[in-house]
Amino acid sequence: MKTTGSNAAHVDLDLAATLFGELERATRRGRGIVRDSYGPGEQAAHDIVRTAAERLGLEVSIDAIGNLAMTLPGKDRRAPRILMGSHLDSVPQGGNFDGAAGVVAGLCALAALRRVGFVPPCDISAVAIRAEESSWFDVSYLGSAGAFGLLDPACLAVRRSDNGRTLEETLLERGFDPEAIRKRRRLLEPGQVRAYLELHIEQGPRLVAEGLPAAVVTGIRGCKRFRNAHCVGEYGHSGALPRPLRHDAVAATVALLHELERLWLREEAQGADLLITTGELYTDAAAHAPSKVAGETRFVIDLRSVSESVMEAVASEARRAAERIGGQYRVCFDLGPATDSPPAMMDTRLRAVLMSLLAQPLEMPSGAGHDAAVFAHVGVPSAMILVRNDHGSHNPDEAMTLEDFAVGTRAMISLLQQFPL
Amino acid sequence: MKTTGSNAAHVDLDLAATLFGELERATRRGRGIVRDSYGPGEQAAHDIVRTAAERLGLEVSIDAIGNLAMTLPGKDRRAPRILMGSHLDSVPQGGNFDGAAGVVAGLCALAALRRVGFVPPCDISAVAIRAEESSWFDVSYLGSAGAFGLLDPACLAVRRSDNGRTLEETLLERGFDPEAIRKRRRLLEPGQVRAYLELHIEQGPRLVAEGLPAAVVTGIRGCKRFRNAHCVGEYGHSGALPRPLRHDAVAATVALLHELERLWLREEAQGADLLITTGELYTDAAAHAPSKVAGETRFVIDLRSVSESVMEAVASEARRAAERIGGQYRVCFDLGPATDSPPAMMDTRLRAVLMSLLAQPLEMPSGAGHDAAVFAHVGVPSAMILVRNDHGSHNPDEAMTLEDFAVGTRAMISLLQQFPL
Repeated sequence: MKTTGSNAAHVDLDLAATLFGELERATRRGRGIVRDSYGPGEQAAHDIVRTAAERLGLEVSIDAIGNLAMTLPGKDRRAPRILMGSHLDSVPQGGNFDGAAGVVAGLCALAALRRVGFVPPCDISAVAIRAEESSWFDVSYLGSAGAFGLLDPACLAVRRSDNGRTLEETLLERGFDPEAIRKRRRLLEPGQVRAYLELHIEQGPRLVAEGLPAAVVTGIRGCKRFRNAHCVGEYGHSGALPRPLRHDAVAATVALLHELERLWLREEAQGADLLITTGELYTDAAAHAPSKVAGETRFVIDLRSVSESVMEAVASEARRAAERIGGQYRVCFDLGPATDSPPAMMDTRLRAVLMSLLAQPLEMPSGAGHDAAVFAHVGVPSAMILVRNDHGSHNPDEAMTLEDFAVGTRAMISLLQQFPL
Repeated sequence: MKTTGSNAAHVDLDLAATLFGELERATRRGRGIVRDSYGPGEQAAHDIVRTAAERLGLEVSIDAIGNLAMTLPGKDRRAPRILMGSHLDSVPQGGNFDGAAGVVAGLCALAALRRVGFVPPCDISAVAIRAEESSWFDVSYLGSAGAFGLLDPACLAVRRSDNGRTLEETLLERGFDPEAIRKRRRLLEPGQVRAYLELHIEQGPRLVAEGLPAAVVTGIRGCKRFRNAHCVGEYGHSGALPRPLRHDAVAATVALLHELERLWLREEAQGADLLITTGELYTDAAAHAPSKVAGETRFVIDLRSVSESVMEAVASEARRAAERIGGQYRVCFDLGPATDSPPAMMDTRLRAVLMSLLAQPLEMPSGAGHDAAVFAHVGVPSAMILVRNDHGSHNPDEAMTLEDFAVGTRAMISLLQQFPL
């Protein structure tokens, strides 16, 4: 493992273990973790983290919609500041680390810097962002998007999936100010943020497979999705219809999805970042039968990439392939409109520094969305480290070791010590 | 059109039109035809046909389970006889010709032979077989299989799909004898049947596509079916799971079905008779999602062929492909047991004669099942003619012209005149 010089700040694993332990004890409900966005679970986590920050002597502030900043003052208090953190909410019956690891890493980083007497050129805040998960209010990034005044005020009427209370009612109950969202007020100016850093557990299996503790994120993949793809053929007798006279929706859909896999392999061979998934595919249960050629299929095509142009090219090829294969199989494909969530590239310079700080450097895209995508989209230089985690995320079996957490946090601390870059 | 000599018997299209008209008027219910097996609809059809037979001077007899035989006596009344007919029941909201065309053809044939004074070497009976359709009692070929004592007596307890009355109750109501089925009594000895001839409308679109009025059937396709094929992978995040780490049940199923299509094309190129259909295919609606790699699919593989060995070879290849592709995609296929309904080949000699009697001879397999399959399976030399029919069968839009009906019936009459072959 590389060291970062004589004033290397140590990660206090006792602090980390204590915080993860307190978070778990306070928010475990049965087998899983429940930190409901803007609910008692998330609030309990915020209280734990805030108390720890005060014990560490950090300045604490909370914005109008509940985002918590715990600040180590810099030399120039008016200079754009650095934020390092993540969210504290979880999905229902989630795990202890998705989100929380990044907030604990922020606190551990500030604790380490303070312990070695490091005074940064600008303020550095560990941040606990509200309501990143969409499972409670069906809106992603409420806290970070809300901080930048980016939320559609209509979201105030969205009801919590479990108790039916609106976001507005919930914010008021918690003492926060829905007017900030209604008036699209900016609680945070992009120009006042020098950088946003986020550590997060990996939500896929790659680091486990590669045997590495942490990786630097190249970008957060965007998603282009044909949510309502549809193939219409004609039902017919499976024993009486010769192949050339069929309008077989299943055969055509298989041909199309096979062609998409071919495209994927070609793009992969050319080094492009791309994932293609059909997670839903079905014939019509009201009309299909073992002895009938299928007259209809419905399916989803989900494209992910850090490159918008790769997704656009593949989406265009998918549309052309549907046209061509539809003709060959005498069926009609309608892929429908594509929803589009753009990729968010991480800052090249920050990525390079982080890579230089890992003993076994690896860069990879993040497949899941993160608050860092919101910061990147408003122009804040952003960077992420993913930490090895077994069993995926959003479930009670999330498994991150403190050793791996320390590898990621140490790189973040060293990065913080190198500002201004 | 070829003629068959000076004593060529004419098809009396007035008789045919009258019978089809009476059948339709008596059994139309709304848009479709309802001739419920052993119910009032089928009985009305039997009554119409029987009355016509008596008017023609044919001998009428009805067996213990209601099959109707209308006989033109031959020179040797003890010689094995020839049967020509089909069934008179229909599916609910069916069409006027499926089944009935064959019975009317039988009557028209005997009327024609009698008109020209032809005395056959053996008895020839036009037969109206009971309850061929499985839509009422969920048992196929009740009439023909019952006549040969082949029915499982347990079928007596099967309830009619609409009114819930058992087959036994229904037979008793109609004055027939369930004991014949319970004791597996043979009402017809295979050795006493010289040949079975059946004219039926085509249930596929091929004759319409080829512009031909009629075709000779090579055989009735068998069916080997993997009814409960299943693929188990592992659910995962569609944005975070790299291709090589996926256990994608949809991708694997697409690869398998694509491979089956490749096999099909290969068999087709080699001239084999084969149809492969996946009419049902679905991910699990309780677990799938647009953003999840699919962890499971269920599907059907339906193989049809007049050749048992082709079906067996393809089923074996399908099992091997599932094993191989399962390994490649890190999923587990379980095709499950295959149900097996064997093909029934039509008699080579009878086929050849029929072919010689068509001006535009064409042979094709029958994809749907027919009573002829039962006769062929017990060793009775059997032959079928399919007559062009638009819009498929089992629906109110069945469309056969009397001209096409005459082409098929004329060939059958000429065949009858050539016995003993």
